[in-house]
Amino acid sequence: MIILFGLFVRYDEESDAHWSEHKHENNITSDIENDFYYRYPSFQDVHVMIFVGFGFLMTFLKRYSFGGVGFNFLIAAFGLQWALLMQGWFHSLDPADGQIKIGIENIINADFCVAGCLIAYGALLGKVSPVQLMVLTLFGITLFAVEEYIILHVLHVRDAGGSMVIHTFGAYYGLTISWILYRPKLNQSKNLSGSVYHSDVFAMIGTLFLWMFWPSFNSAIADHGDGQHRAAINTYLALAASVITTFAISSLSAKRGKLDMVHIQNATLAGGVAMGTAAEFMITTYGSLIVGFCCGIISTFGYLVITPFMEKYMKIQDTCGIHNLHAMPGVFGAVVGAITAATASESVYGHEGLVNTFDFKGEYAERTPAMQGGFQAAGLCVALAFGIVGGAIVGFILRLPFWGDPSDDNCFDDEVYWEKCSLVFPSI
Amino acid sequence: MIILFGLFVRYDEESDAHWSEHKHENNITSDIENDFYYRYPSFQDVHVMIFVGFGFLMTFLKRYSFGGVGFNFLIAAFGLQWALLMQGWFHSLDPADGQIKIGIENIINADFCVAGCLIAYGALLGKVSPVQLMVLTLFGITLFAVEEYIILHVLHVRDAGGSMVIHTFGAYYGLTISWILYRPKLNQSKNLSGSVYHSDVFAMIGTLFLWMFWPSFNSAIADHGDGQHRAAINTYLALAASVITTFAISSLSAKRGKLDMVHIQNATLAGGVAMGTAAEFMITTYGSLIVGFCCGIISTFGYLVITPFMEKYMKIQDTCGIHNLHAMPGVFGAVVGAITAATASESVYGHEGLVNTFDFKGEYAERTPAMQGGFQAAGLCVALAFGIVGGAIVGFILRLPFWGDPSDDNCFDDEVYWEKCSLVFPSI
Amino acid sequence: MIILFGLFVRYDEESDAHWSEHKHENNITSDIENDFYYRYPSFQDVHVMIFVGFGFLMTFLKRYSFGGVGFNFLIAAFGLQWALLMQGWFHSLDPADGQIKIGIENIINADFCVAGCLIAYGALLGKVSPVQLMVLTLFGITLFAVEEYIILHVLHVRDAGGSMVIHTFGAYYGLTISWILYRPKLNQSKNLSGSVYHSDVFAMIGTLFLWMFWPSFNSAIADHGDGQHRAAINTYLALAASVITTFAISSLSAKRGKLDMVHIQNATLAGGVAMGTAAEFMITTYGSLIVGFCCGIISTFGYLVITPFMEKYMKIQDTCGIHNLHAMPGVFGAVVGAITAATASESVYGHEGLVNTFDFKGEYAERTPAMQGGFQAAGLCVALAFGIVGGAIVGFILRLPFWGDPSDDNCFDDEVYWEKCSLVFPSI
Repeated sequence: MIILFGLFVRYDEESDAHWSEHKHENNITSDIENDFYYRYPSFQDVHVMIFVGFGFLMTFLKRYSFGGVGFNFLIAAFGLQWALLMQGWFHSLDPADGQIKIGIENIINADFCVAGCLIAYGALLGKVSPVQLMVLTLFGITLFAVEEYIILHVLHVRDAGGSMVIHTFGAYYGLTISWILYRPKLNQSKNLSGSVYHSDVFAMIGTLFLWMFWPSFNSAIADHGDGQHRAAINTYLALAASVITTFAISSLSAKRGKLDMVHIQNATLAGGVAMGTAAEFMITTYGSLIVGFCCGIISTFGYLVITPFMEKYMKIQDTCGIHNLHAMPGVFGAVVGAITAATASESVYGHEGLVNTFDFKGEYAERTPAMQGGFQAAGLCVALAFGIVGGAIVGFILRLPFWGDPSDDNCFDDEVYWEKCSLVFPSI
Repeated sequence: MIILFGLFVRYDEESDAHWSEHKHENNITSDIENDFYYRYPSFQDVHVMIFVGFGFLMTFLKRYSFGGVGFNFLIAAFGLQWALLMQGWFHSLDPADGQIKIGIENIINADFCVAGCLIAYGALLGKVSPVQLMVLTLFGITLFAVEEYIILHVLHVRDAGGSMVIHTFGAYYGLTISWILYRPKLNQSKNLSGSVYHSDVFAMIGTLFLWMFWPSFNSAIADHGDGQHRAAINTYLALAASVITTFAISSLSAKRGKLDMVHIQNATLAGGVAMGTAAEFMITTYGSLIVGFCCGIISTFGYLVITPFMEKYMKIQDTCGIHNLHAMPGVFGAVVGAITAATASESVYGHEGLVNTFDFKGEYAERTPAMQGGFQAAGLCVALAFGIVGGAIVGFILRLPFWGDPSDDNCFDDEVYWEKCSLVFPSI
Repeated sequence: MIILFGLFVRYDEESDAHWSEHKHENNITSDIENDFYYRYPSFQDVHVMIFVGFGFLMTFLKRYSFGGVGFNFLIAAFGLQWALLMQGWFHSLDPADGQIKIGIENIINADFCVAGCLIAYGALLGKVSPVQLMVLTLFGITLFAVEEYIILHVLHVRDAGGSMVIHTFGAYYGLTISWILYRPKLNQSKNLSGSVYHSDVFAMIGTLFLWMFWPSFNSAIADHGDGQHRAAINTYLALAASVITTFAISSLSAKRGKLDMVHIQNATLAGGVAMGTAAEFMITTYGSLIVGFCCGIISTFGYLVITPFMEKYMKIQDTCGIHNLHAMPGVFGAVVGAITAATASESVYGHEGLVNTFDFKGEYAERTPAMQGGFQAAGLCVALAFGIVGGAIVGFILRLPFWGDPSDDNCFDDEVYWEKCSLVFPSI
């Protein structure tokens, strides 16, 4: 890794010490114009989502909290280095000298790329070894970079918050692997897959940090100015709507109206996933609320009906329910994005606004909103294909017998991979 | 809600795709001038305070952690949508087309508005049903918007961090409701109102995030430039002073000098509440320390003496002690703000600084600092009146028998409203 | 404290109400040029590191979580007030009127200064009384301010993230005190120095917030523009590399490849410590990875070998292992910084970039990179000397018999200093 960075990675002009010369050449009057100040606060929010958000969301299992937060930490830190290289080769290669120039936008993108693999980890939580996770991440990042290149550059699709690129891909990648690694006797082993009171409170830390910072996630690499501003507001509204519907459906579906912590921890986030594509468009405030409203329903319904169905009849064991939180809302968000793009008009966006929002410049200057809508839909198909085919290949690799995966009895148990935790467990 | 948003809510010029045209018309040279970049980092800090800060602060009860953080999540997400509408009608209505134009400042204000209701929830924690909380929030937000309109627009009072508008109103609103919903036999029921070791550590998460981000709370909607800068510094100092006095008083008041976690979790925050009005004024650094010093004493003293007194003699059961954390410091802060405003002078602020800080422009150009001090005091009275009268009305509504409030025996117990948590409790 | 602030501390021109006049005089066109907008997001990240990061990192002990997070809160809040004064006298004194002018950079520096004392607390965790901690902080801040003045101003050394100034000084200060306060029979007392399952998860909150926000720590007071940008990227990379090597070494060193939570909680952060000096230099991306790689090894190795060795043969009891996390990586980082500075050249930095990065202006205009490297090395010696000599003096003061330090049996036990926690402990 160090060698590859040594050969290929350099600072870009905004993080290089030649910045003061770059400023003179480009008539930039102030240091505050450095992209760092536009994006660094959003980057930190995304960073919190990746490490604390995803990490603590996975602590809900009663004896797998170390594995949830610890392995999340490991694969995220490993993945982001590999992502800087892979995404760099596809997106940031400087043709003049064949080197990757990195700045703040690259490290946000690396975090995004890692998110795809962490979503896949959600389906496999407690059932794979750290070595398997490293392999999953290595291939996942690589597939992600290629898929992203095709969707964003070849098809010129807009997907600032990654409904397609991150969520749809990541979820189907993880679900396909989980399907191939199906453990038929898991339910007959000693069952550690539930939660305890305090582990559910820990998981709420993850939920809340994901929920709060999702507006930053969807706006982090949106256009400067109105693009980032609008993406944040739309996501904020969709998330708020998801919370209400999740509480309502969770309460209505249970005997005596009791709420289920699993729904609250997950389905409340569906609105953010579904706004990944359309957040920077002029989807309107009530459009955002409708998206959040629908996703809250879809996602809670998924936990109630679809996850048990998939486990029983389709042989897919989905520990965290990523099908409900990422796959369905991701696909829904991609469709919403395609429709919103197809119906965009100069009367709503203004001429300049339309060009800026969809980047109808250069070789894409002739593209119309309707065409853009078609390309957005094509992007969704690419994400699905990469997720399913890539997941199948990696799943078969992970079935090879030398990765040290835990036996059925050791699933969801920290004792296999962590020192000392067995000794202290009886005392709490 | 969706229909109301569809009819009334639009993007403002800084979050609309016409931003690039707006830039040309107003000679704005750079995207960084978009208000998003002035306020978004502060917004995210406030957002963390609302959801993680208030949420985790309320997890301290040994069997009501789900309810503390979960219902906080529900009413905050519901409240902010309603707040965008109510505040929009009063503050951001565009006279040209009768629609509400929202931007970053609106969503910060919506979070502020929600804070008022969450404070009220603190008095009622564990004793009301989620449906009652929704009703409390619906009316609370509405009252808040009217009260805020009168204080900030009619009286032209400055209250950037909401000592009056948020804390005084919210606390008296909650206390009055709690007084009306008094449960005389609560102490004879099985007592679950204490904390356990780990639930107190969870509550410290809430305390610390509130404490750390309070400078953002008080500076989020202050004036650009020196206003935000000064508000952050003043709040930072007042909070630091509160911590020292809280530890000192807590230790001095106990046998053998032991510290009480309840004081540390709450009274340390009093300095931030009390700087809500005066933070953006030239209160001086030692003024901020004095405010924090006094509030730490008042608030810790409140937990030691006033809360037991109120419960025994005034029939007010205040679960989280909001009288000590929000009511008294809020009133104190309003008085400090009035005095600071009344003693402002051009020699301290400079002519332009005085006009900017107190917004002595347009129809208020003739107002003097002394007059402003009087209006600030009047604002406090409005906040108190709205809190008490509004709380009385809503309290009687909540006493109606069909809201499904828990019996005395079920107070402070998650089992009533949450699935499964009874099963797992014995094991921890 | 209030009197001292009243006599000496004023707002600087960017937080004073005269800012609008200052803008006119200096041709500043926009409020966004206020230093607040350059540094406030980074400040809040640093603030989170100090209070949540350090605080929760110290909750890992099974019966000392209140003390870890609570006393951290106390001494940080006390320390930052004292630091504003001490650092103000040495760095921000306005010669015109003999007063300290404070702004956002001062409060970041106060947080940094506090970090030095919190590091020292790490060595003493569970073995000292709150009064001893206050004394430790009072002297620590004072020593820090003098040491920082010598290193940054007299020697004109660059140390934006404080590898020397903060980490090396703080660690040796704490270790020397711990050596003097050696408790020979500690291991024979009832042993409460271990962790339990949930306390380790709490500690991961601290670890992750420290890890995520370390790029802000190292870039918070770096130069505007490319300096902050580059410091953030370099730190991000070094931290990622540390995580990988920590997991690898931790797994390789244990029987059956199990991971040790102590390593994951601490050694993963070593890369951030070691980039404290060199982060803003053109150390290159692979240079950052190498630094992180080496530090992860050094630090994990320290936990495995050096800490037990120090306790057994050198009579230094280091509760949190600060020697491995701060002392060794800090010294390593200072050496890396000196080498990077000594090898700087105009071809890499550009003429203007070199002058800006190393501040070769005014009386230092003649200094060459090679000379700068020598001064950097001298700075390390100053930090070491202050840490060891200062620690020795303060250690002897703390050995005086009237500070109320806990007996060996009461070490690592919250019951001595906190109300009620003994009653509730059996139930969890």
